[in-house]
Amino acid sequence: VIAPERLQSLSVADLGEHALIDRITSRLAMPPWVVVGPGDDAAVVTPDRGALDVLTTDALVDGVHFDLRLVPPEAIGHRALAVSLSDLAAMGAQPRVALLSLVLPGTLPAATVDGLLDGLLALAATHRVALVGGNIARTPGPLVVDVTAVGSVSRRRILRRSGARPGDEVFVTGTLGDGAVGWRALAAAGSESLAAARGAASAVARYLRPEPRIRAGLVIGRNRAATSCIDLSDGLADGVRQIAAASGVGITIDAGAVPVGDDVGRWSARQGGEALELALSGGDDYELLFTARPSHRGRLRTVRRQLGALPLTRIGTVTREQEVLLRDATGRTRGLTGGFEHFRRE
Amino acid sequence: VIAPERLQSLSVADLGEHALIDRITSRLAMPPWVVVGPGDDAAVVTPDRGALDVLTTDALVDGVHFDLRLVPPEAIGHRALAVSLSDLAAMGAQPRVALLSLVLPGTLPAATVDGLLDGLLALAATHRVALVGGNIARTPGPLVVDVTAVGSVSRRRILRRSGARPGDEVFVTGTLGDGAVGWRALAAAGSESLAAARGAASAVARYLRPEPRIRAGLVIGRNRAATSCIDLSDGLADGVRQIAAASGVGITIDAGAVPVGDDVGRWSARQGGEALELALSGGDDYELLFTARPSHRGRLRTVRRQLGALPLTRIGTVTREQEVLLRDATGRTRGLTGGFEHFRRE
Repeated sequence: VIAPERLQSLSVADLGEHALIDRITSRLAMPPWVVVGPGDDAAVVTPDRGALDVLTTDALVDGVHFDLRLVPPEAIGHRALAVSLSDLAAMGAQPRVALLSLVLPGTLPAATVDGLLDGLLALAATHRVALVGGNIARTPGPLVVDVTAVGSVSRRRILRRSGARPGDEVFVTGTLGDGAVGWRALAAAGSESLAAARGAASAVARYLRPEPRIRAGLVIGRNRAATSCIDLSDGLADGVRQIAAASGVGITIDAGAVPVGDDVGRWSARQGGEALELALSGGDDYELLFTARPSHRGRLRTVRRQLGALPLTRIGTVTREQEVLLRDATGRTRGLTGGFEHFRRE
Repeated sequence: VIAPERLQSLSVADLGEHALIDRITSRLAMPPWVVVGPGDDAAVVTPDRGALDVLTTDALVDGVHFDLRLVPPEAIGHRALAVSLSDLAAMGAQPRVALLSLVLPGTLPAATVDGLLDGLLALAATHRVALVGGNIARTPGPLVVDVTAVGSVSRRRILRRSGARPGDEVFVTGTLGDGAVGWRALAAAGSESLAAARGAASAVARYLRPEPRIRAGLVIGRNRAATSCIDLSDGLADGVRQIAAASGVGITIDAGAVPVGDDVGRWSARQGGEALELALSGGDDYELLFTARPSHRGRLRTVRRQLGALPLTRIGTVTREQEVLLRDATGRTRGLTGGFEHFRRE
């Protein structure tokens, strides 16, 4: 056992791979359906009886998806798991297990890995996800945190991107733009506490520790309330285009209906930016976008009742013409562009 | 569609994330048990009926686990899947699906990604593994290829590290040292063809395109022939220590019994190195190390018959005293040290 004050000065290279793995695995508790947990060549898990496996993987890279100088390690761990859980939520799946692949610069403080695990395991506990395995590799480059998450869903409850039909209504959970404003406020202030003091506390919290909409996905799937669904990691505009393309339809979004986060309006007013633009294209919101048949309003009412405080907002309609449009208050439309693309040329 | 001659000059940043994903997914064919393949928020897969899920993830980093200047892209793709499949083999599992997480420098030629996929998909086809999903992220650092592989195993056939008992015999598949010699020969010669011309063709081929011992793991598991098993990605010495530690036993390896690859002896004779040391500590061999009860020799005979050409060599015994030893021809023993550890201080 290494004394905490000594750990502060140790890098992951000082500690070594085996000691690092032992530090991590000693914190893990396995539920009974995990037959072989960490420490063997691979993990062995009992599948959910009668259900299908749902699998997704996402990598976060220092300097691209977060910034180690601004984002606390615990928030990096939270985000790394949250982005994968958000993908499971968008399929209507119940998360069950995760694998953590860490690509670590040798100079990284061992305490940073501990902090990262704090955040990841806290979110995992919230959603009863077991961290059953992973990998540690060294890199001459930036920290990469890759999480694979596996969940389960029954065949009838799968939420796909491809089922939207003309006439369906378009809905979104929660509010938008908070992730983008949170990131901007954090970068401008230099720390979470300073950004909070400047009035962006809620947006920064949502950027640092996004809540994957697991329960919303499960409730929508269980009630068979949606014809398509996607999570909004890359922004509303991107999500709308993805559903439209996968479903072979068009979508028109009502600009005035888009639910913009409270901090987003305040931030835009002060900074002179456009709140709507941040909500449309900012990304990092991790809300669910879905389409529903007007004839299934009863199902949607049940979903609303079961979701309680989480708002569901109708923001548009699915059209036959394969165009993705934004309609303003005067009824004029323009193409709905924007959204985060990795490798976009700056 | 981009003409091949134009592709040669395109980087992944030129191509963009969506085009890159389209290039990859257009090459994939899904078996009927894949309910949702690439292109949605997550993949949905029907679990193998009556079996357990086996999950593993491994990352390869340019400059650490391979070198883009020496290793052809197609071999990088092969290796990235092979190391994860090797973990499944060591559990006695049948591989079924893989997820590919690519962390790409923007300047990487798009043709490199194509080549990587060539190698990965060729190996996937050999083992009937479906590439059901993945992720692409940008990095200011080196290329990282992270593969998560999922297989299935029935509960009675799981091969763990922890079942070795005093009196068990220790076996290894294939020959050892080839991976380490292959890497050294490649680095010395500067290319695969030059290294081959210098007489290390077989070792270089084994380094670049290791064969995961899937069939051996399945046959050993099906015949319940082993009390413990591990794959030798980090070298024989490391594998022996891992089994001994997990099982709470000691192991003594007979130096003279260790099956050394043909190229390893030749390379060592010419370079003045020690063939045995390369076989013990070189790593990158991806053979299986397992222990078996002497009373189960009949099961082992069945395994040998079913494996055909792949040699199984008895190289030592499990002891009650918790020491890991190497015994030479004169009967003298020394501690079995060495093996590849990531983050080892050089």
